[in-house]
Amino acid sequence: MATGDKDIPSGDPPPPPPKPSSSSHELESPSIAERDNLAKRESGVDARSPMRLRMEQYIKEKQKEIVRALEALDGQSFQRDEWSRPSGGGGISCVLQEGDVFEKAGVNISVVYGTLPRAAVAKMRVNHKALDPDVESLEFFAAGLSLVLHPHNPMAPTVHLNYRYFETANADGSTNAWWFGGGTDLTPSYLFDEDVIHFHRGIKEACDAHDKDYYSRFKKWCDEYFSVKHRGESRGVGGIFFDDLDESEKDQESLFAFCQSCLGAFLPSYIPIIQKRKDMPFTEKEKQWQQLRRGRYVEFNLVHDRGTAFGLNTPGARIESILMSLPLTARWQYQHEPEKGSREDRLLNVLKNPVEWV
Amino acid sequence: MATGDKDIPSGDPPPPPPKPSSSSHELESPSIAERDNLAKRESGVDARSPMRLRMEQYIKEKQKEIVRALEALDGQSFQRDEWSRPSGGGGISCVLQEGDVFEKAGVNISVVYGTLPRAAVAKMRVNHKALDPDVESLEFFAAGLSLVLHPHNPMAPTVHLNYRYFETANADGSTNAWWFGGGTDLTPSYLFDEDVIHFHRGIKEACDAHDKDYYSRFKKWCDEYFSVKHRGESRGVGGIFFDDLDESEKDQESLFAFCQSCLGAFLPSYIPIIQKRKDMPFTEKEKQWQQLRRGRYVEFNLVHDRGTAFGLNTPGARIESILMSLPLTARWQYQHEPEKGSREDRLLNVLKNPVEWV
Repeated sequence: MATGDKDIPSGDPPPPPPKPSSSSHELESPSIAERDNLAKRESGVDARSPMRLRMEQYIKEKQKEIVRALEALDGQSFQRDEWSRPSGGGGISCVLQEGDVFEKAGVNISVVYGTLPRAAVAKMRVNHKALDPDVESLEFFAAGLSLVLHPHNPMAPTVHLNYRYFETANADGSTNAWWFGGGTDLTPSYLFDEDVIHFHRGIKEACDAHDKDYYSRFKKWCDEYFSVKHRGESRGVGGIFFDDLDESEKDQESLFAFCQSCLGAFLPSYIPIIQKRKDMPFTEKEKQWQQLRRGRYVEFNLVHDRGTAFGLNTPGARIESILMSLPLTARWQYQHEPEKGSREDRLLNVLKNPVEWV
Repeated sequence: MATGDKDIPSGDPPPPPPKPSSSSHELESPSIAERDNLAKRESGVDARSPMRLRMEQYIKEKQKEIVRALEALDGQSFQRDEWSRPSGGGGISCVLQEGDVFEKAGVNISVVYGTLPRAAVAKMRVNHKALDPDVESLEFFAAGLSLVLHPHNPMAPTVHLNYRYFETANADGSTNAWWFGGGTDLTPSYLFDEDVIHFHRGIKEACDAHDKDYYSRFKKWCDEYFSVKHRGESRGVGGIFFDDLDESEKDQESLFAFCQSCLGAFLPSYIPIIQKRKDMPFTEKEKQWQQLRRGRYVEFNLVHDRGTAFGLNTPGARIESILMSLPLTARWQYQHEPEKGSREDRLLNVLKNPVEWV
């Protein structure tokens, strides 16, 4: 899990206390991880399965599809690392480093079963009134797909995507609260308006198919979230971002379908851009500007991103998967200011004043 | 202000509300900034002046001395930027970028007059019971010198230093609470035991001249503070760190003298090391290892350092002075692990298990 990822731990929260085996005296109910494992073994996953299992299956398929498409584009193969968690779940990190097209590319999924302490539940109640405030702890499930692509060529933009599903369980294993979150955003070093318009148009179409209000709501949310506050500028040229979409928004099936449309829109919205830009000529000075922009990306991810903070604060988290989102190289230069009227200056102006692209 | 700097805002907190001019009906007392400006104009600064003025004068002198010594070593000149704050005070940032010896070197001072809101006062009371909890706000003064030097040569260590004085004022302008803080620490990419021993020995001597317990107490504090918690490793090989040293520790004169000794020990503890290492041969692989270590430096400063966080959260702060502490270039490489038994591996072992060097 990388950026923009408020609710899903990027790695391992502390494992729940060990459960005593059931006895006739004390009927200890199985954890949701145990229930899900049994369900998968006994009947597989289909459209009638709980959302947890369907989301997990879906993001696994999408990870494979995206990795295949990016390998075809880059020419190099991703390194694939799979891990599992003692309390249930696990993840697969696919990372391509120093490829032909990408300086660093990560496509990760994680599936986390864990237990939220009382304080975390209280915090989440702000957005989810269904959560019982009077419990000592709550079992939860979180699954998501997260990707960050940093191309070599400064004319080709960095892109980030993350879609996730979160659920808490009642003591009997039934669903207590659930919600979807996610988004995708583009971070160019050099602005090609046609690229940004293409990217936003693809997302807008995916949104419009579900709700005519979604694109403008979630585009605004994205501009606000991906803000390097201490610089007074956006990380990039936006996209969409949303969180906490639950039954107060739409039913579970509709929101799952919406996330599927968004994820489905990713490759067609990004691949044509990278194909157009990956072999463009560039100067050493343009490469350095990209490096400075990478520095801002690092600042956002380490200082402001709630998902990164949540991951780094989670004991036992897989740090390498969380910080996969950082670029291979970055640069900080004291008081660098682009020349007035230059392309670099134009980018900065757009980052200070987000634009409506479509 | 850069790293290790808990209490001093790196830039501008919001200016205090404008004060009405005095009248016979309402005797509005001048701010401490106004008092200090008057005192400097009327009688200059000497040993009988308030600590605020003496500390300001002292760090200005030391900044000049250190910058001169580093320029003599590097061969290139520092860029000097001076700024002032509407509510009083200001700063001088001296930065050398892409010098002959230093990739990036910053020697900054800042003097800040401002107002602490009630919540900040309540937080500070944990360590300073003298602070009145029942005020809406408190005037404060903070002054400090902060430096970070990142040499080009991977055999030459990065070094950081910060010494600072903090004071709050009663409504009549008299001193309410005051304390000193600071420290210095060394961050090598390659370990030369003799360098680390030399560095620690110099600091220990400075400490011992004031209190035989200081070195061991403040060395331990340093190891704990400069910890990249999410990696389970220290940023470097330590040094000293202390904070909140007030009358419960020693009288103001003694603590000022202690800070002066520490600051005075800096050039003799670092210059011989850099002179020995700055021209050593190195390989491309060793340069890359340095870049990875620079990445960890960025992680500490952006994720864990309380001073950086305080600075970035201060509205109107001078971001370029705060982030001066970041290296010019850094690198993140997925799952990089040094070869067992290599020099890189040995450094990591020391960072995971801090050593008593003297």
